[in-house]
Amino acid sequence: MRQYHFLDDYSEGAHPEILNALSASNLVQQSAYGADDYSAAASSLIAAQLGPDFVGEIHFVASGTMANIICIASCLRPHEAVIAVESGHIVAREAGAIEATGHKLITVPAVNGKITPAQIEKALQANAHFPHMAKPKLVYLSNATETGTVYTLEELQALSALAKARGLYLFMDGARLGAALASPHNDATLQDIATLVDLFWIGGTKLGALLGEAIVVSNPALAQDFAFHIKQRGGMLAKGRVLGIQFQALFGERQWFTALATHANQMAARLSAGIVAAGGRLASETETNQVFAIVPDAAITALQQSFAFYVWGPAEAGHSVVRLVTSWATDADQVEAFIAQLTGLL
Amino acid sequence: MRQYHFLDDYSEGAHPEILNALSASNLVQQSAYGADDYSAAASSLIAAQLGPDFVGEIHFVASGTMANIICIASCLRPHEAVIAVESGHIVAREAGAIEATGHKLITVPAVNGKITPAQIEKALQANAHFPHMAKPKLVYLSNATETGTVYTLEELQALSALAKARGLYLFMDGARLGAALASPHNDATLQDIATLVDLFWIGGTKLGALLGEAIVVSNPALAQDFAFHIKQRGGMLAKGRVLGIQFQALFGERQWFTALATHANQMAARLSAGIVAAGGRLASETETNQVFAIVPDAAITALQQSFAFYVWGPAEAGHSVVRLVTSWATDADQVEAFIAQLTGLL
Amino acid sequence: MRQYHFLDDYSEGAHPEILNALSASNLVQQSAYGADDYSAAASSLIAAQLGPDFVGEIHFVASGTMANIICIASCLRPHEAVIAVESGHIVAREAGAIEATGHKLITVPAVNGKITPAQIEKALQANAHFPHMAKPKLVYLSNATETGTVYTLEELQALSALAKARGLYLFMDGARLGAALASPHNDATLQDIATLVDLFWIGGTKLGALLGEAIVVSNPALAQDFAFHIKQRGGMLAKGRVLGIQFQALFGERQWFTALATHANQMAARLSAGIVAAGGRLASETETNQVFAIVPDAAITALQQSFAFYVWGPAEAGHSVVRLVTSWATDADQVEAFIAQLTGLL
Amino acid sequence: MRQYHFLDDYSEGAHPEILNALSASNLVQQSAYGADDYSAAASSLIAAQLGPDFVGEIHFVASGTMANIICIASCLRPHEAVIAVESGHIVAREAGAIEATGHKLITVPAVNGKITPAQIEKALQANAHFPHMAKPKLVYLSNATETGTVYTLEELQALSALAKARGLYLFMDGARLGAALASPHNDATLQDIATLVDLFWIGGTKLGALLGEAIVVSNPALAQDFAFHIKQRGGMLAKGRVLGIQFQALFGERQWFTALATHANQMAARLSAGIVAAGGRLASETETNQVFAIVPDAAITALQQSFAFYVWGPAEAGHSVVRLVTSWATDADQVEAFIAQLTGLL
Repeated sequence: MRQYHFLDDYSEGAHPEILNALSASNLVQQSAYGADDYSAAASSLIAAQLGPDFVGEIHFVASGTMANIICIASCLRPHEAVIAVESGHIVAREAGAIEATGHKLITVPAVNGKITPAQIEKALQANAHFPHMAKPKLVYLSNATETGTVYTLEELQALSALAKARGLYLFMDGARLGAALASPHNDATLQDIATLVDLFWIGGTKLGALLGEAIVVSNPALAQDFAFHIKQRGGMLAKGRVLGIQFQALFGERQWFTALATHANQMAARLSAGIVAAGGRLASETETNQVFAIVPDAAITALQQSFAFYVWGPAEAGHSVVRLVTSWATDADQVEAFIAQLTGLL
Repeated sequence: MRQYHFLDDYSEGAHPEILNALSASNLVQQSAYGADDYSAAASSLIAAQLGPDFVGEIHFVASGTMANIICIASCLRPHEAVIAVESGHIVAREAGAIEATGHKLITVPAVNGKITPAQIEKALQANAHFPHMAKPKLVYLSNATETGTVYTLEELQALSALAKARGLYLFMDGARLGAALASPHNDATLQDIATLVDLFWIGGTKLGALLGEAIVVSNPALAQDFAFHIKQRGGMLAKGRVLGIQFQALFGERQWFTALATHANQMAARLSAGIVAAGGRLASETETNQVFAIVPDAAITALQQSFAFYVWGPAEAGHSVVRLVTSWATDADQVEAFIAQLTGLL
Repeated sequence: MRQYHFLDDYSEGAHPEILNALSASNLVQQSAYGADDYSAAASSLIAAQLGPDFVGEIHFVASGTMANIICIASCLRPHEAVIAVESGHIVAREAGAIEATGHKLITVPAVNGKITPAQIEKALQANAHFPHMAKPKLVYLSNATETGTVYTLEELQALSALAKARGLYLFMDGARLGAALASPHNDATLQDIATLVDLFWIGGTKLGALLGEAIVVSNPALAQDFAFHIKQRGGMLAKGRVLGIQFQALFGERQWFTALATHANQMAARLSAGIVAAGGRLASETETNQVFAIVPDAAITALQQSFAFYVWGPAEAGHSVVRLVTSWATDADQVEAFIAQLTGLL
Repeated sequence: MRQYHFLDDYSEGAHPEILNALSASNLVQQSAYGADDYSAAASSLIAAQLGPDFVGEIHFVASGTMANIICIASCLRPHEAVIAVESGHIVAREAGAIEATGHKLITVPAVNGKITPAQIEKALQANAHFPHMAKPKLVYLSNATETGTVYTLEELQALSALAKARGLYLFMDGARLGAALASPHNDATLQDIATLVDLFWIGGTKLGALLGEAIVVSNPALAQDFAFHIKQRGGMLAKGRVLGIQFQALFGERQWFTALATHANQMAARLSAGIVAAGGRLASETETNQVFAIVPDAAITALQQSFAFYVWGPAEAGHSVVRLVTSWATDADQVEAFIAQLTGLL
């Protein structure tokens, strides 16, 4: 019997409405390389959420690593470095992609998955020996974080103020920005984010698109010549329409961007509540679409007959932490089945 | 009135069968990052065409520039350079993507769009001043070429023999490899190519896929660790299935890969014949899906009311060369309409 | 018998006054990494020749390739390219050093060894297809050129005006700037150059130093953070004094910089006159310390018993072009001996 | 009054015998770019110490950062990473030079300044998530370490065995290798090192040369094409003789390499003994030419009237750690003066 996946939020294809949009537009001839009508429309829909003062640019690329490479390498001069938490995706999960563009990563410990002004200040002090140390210039953060936590508006404001005061760029990896914005713990809007960071991207891959991330360059100085970087790094699709059509669907009238993230978060909340009700325990509070739960090892083995998920690490004797990820596609019946089976096991 | 495009072979979305395949598989859960069943099946289908001796690897990436970056940068040590024709895509149309990975391009003039053993020998001689000149190590060629010509088997054998004799890697950019293989001028098979070059890629974007190129690493020494390079350059899609499904369709039972390329070439042949019959002239013989024709400027202006195409350059007084590109999606009625209008104008 | 070298201008060690300066200061303790008193004094001496408006920075590095790497890579964003003549040192003699920092070189044919505004304009037009072509941003020129010619003030003014008009940086490789300034064909001063180009360097290695080049960053925007680049590329010597002391000697009271270059040029002029008087012919006018002469092959063979020089290429039947390079160290007696022997042979 | 420096081991110029050697050879004409007789002789002298089985290559470059850049970047493919201790020179003092060549640094805590097999194993385990993490491929170590400690032969053998077992290159930064070999704590020879590591370099700058480091590539596979890398990174001096002459002096009959290092270590030993005798305390045992001592803050202030040294960090209340570095040039009288003054103060 095939297991049901709670492994990640990209085990399925696309939301059906996105496939419909691709089909509906399929034979309309369009200009290539991002100059198509759909990409223009998608940009307008996103820009409409960024407020009247937005004077930056919006671009679409195929993958998150690509978005990170382009955003970071386009900003920095050769001697400039990035500050990031040790668990940051660019640090630990992108095969040295940022270093491959020539830039050092300066890492700091995460606090609840997040980077903090205090950690940034420490990194600045520890890397101030001119000219023998690379110059810290850009702060990288993910929202939601790698562990599913969400930055509050106040936290983002503090990071932005520090970045401005110290001449740093602030860059947000938004692979799961939809889940962050749809979280009950969130009080920031897309417009807030565009105002507070220099550039960020909005993940489509983990939110019901076949692929695609929307880069928002809100600092107009960094927007100059941006398309060159996309082309040079191999991130420009001949059929840019494929990305435009999907983001047009996500940010269109039906607001799928919000709806799909909300579904993912609700499924995670339901899983969390069910686990606790069953007598399990959460390793950390569930803020978005990732659940970290502590479960007896015997129960894990039993659950794995029907469900696929990652065993994240050891907990107290005879127990482990498991990670369960929900998505726009998560089947509520499977969530209930998981809870029911766990309840029977505990 | 909207013009009909003969601008390029990526003005539309995907062949309907490809969209169907994406839809049919959409909610099946799969492993991520290229480890899905569809990518495995697509690899097997392609490998079946490469002969029993094929011991390399097949990988899928989103764009042609990405394929070129990965194939070239994964091969070369820092001091090694690429030999390519001046009109090569990596030289003239990829925003310095290869140099951005640290490697010099040594350019030679093209002969009928192609690179020749004689040109390679000249480049080797002109770049032999050790250690003051970068060391030529990889020969880049496109098949079909940028101008639509096709390498014969004999030409490929000669290039391969030279490369082996001189310790060079031979790499083929196959953005339009489908059109090349389907050309009446072609006498090489995929298996021949896999035997003669070290690595190459098969373009999907220009052959009815939404996006996607299949990299074939036939030299097993170069296949080692290949996935790292895909990940590091941002070329690995979380939903690798999107690429696998499309290539499974292209190389499956119905042989869309061949069928779609054949249609494109036939449309170009029909255009060419029609232009000549109308009293026009070809700037060069049409071997694949690109037509270069010499047309009076007044006729160009008139044609542009209904058709979009590039004016490629000046010809004799009052005339210009135009480029017309056909594709899997080209409408035969529009081809006839173009010919009819041109016939009326000349 | 050992041959006398006319191979290059770096076959000997240093001018004795430079060795004396190194000895005299040897045990004085100094701060490291360029913060020593001698480097400060040398910078002041050079700055004094750059005029009261000079607000840039002066730095010392060990080699010319290093100077080129640092000057170019510190200026450019990743998508920006360099325009240079095909015979440029960075194009043909530095093993791909600039591409190794990520930047494309766009080459144009040299006119009498030089780059011209017309060639730059052509390169701009040929590389304007946004964003598919790397963006030309910096013009590289050598003065004296690879073939020993010198830019006039008017030529430099024209290049500078074009660069400003088109948003390009202008960068001068001054490996043989001393010879250029001391040439009878020259009418530009160091101050002129500092005003007209964004950054340049003054070669010490080919002018009597053991090693060392002085980089002058006259555009203050490019001077920001410059020391980082020197450190990062491995160009910062712990004993920066070694460079400072030598440039202090070259630019001090006795004006060795001018005197040594003048000697080199005079030796080349004497060789040229002697060759012509002997019945030989110059392949091109001798403007600095490089002589290109056309000599019968039999005479070449005979001369090579006593003298080492490069046979540069073929001339008319039975003749070849030879290159003779003179330097600060060239022995006038050997020059006369060469002329005498040639006179006997012709 | 000028302070006497115990700041570093590069505050003076060169040992007088080295200056003499430069003077004595000054006007002898030589081939350029490392092909001179002196470099050949120096290579032979060094090779003679590497044992009869040495089949690698020896090259000379100007600076330690340059040596590190060339050694590391010449070895690695783009996806490969370096393991180093957090205090490693390439990590903390070279402005991101290694990352600028495209490679990630994976850092581990130092144990007594050193890297250990256990730390390497941990790093391998923590970076094994293929292909999402850069692949560890080279272990970097300094001998003597940044804190002046020395690797024993047994330690080097263990590291070498692990590296071989795990397919890693082992690379030794020998900026202070002379001091390490001359240490009473050392039991390894140059030949041992050449046998145990894949490549290493022998520092001249910190051992009485004006500048210069000798790179020994003992793994012949890594020696292939090595000169290209030196040229491409800007590390090849036109007057390569300047480096050859100095290393010929250091490794010649009079064995200055050993003699100068021994003097430096003896001066450090004398300082250490004197500090302890005066009632001070060492923060760590003195193994080479760096002394880390704990001194009352009031004494530090008083000593700084006559001596320059770094205050390295805080110790117990009212005390700090100071670092005193000795060298080939350290004046024994100044050492005694320092001890005398400290004795008076405590």
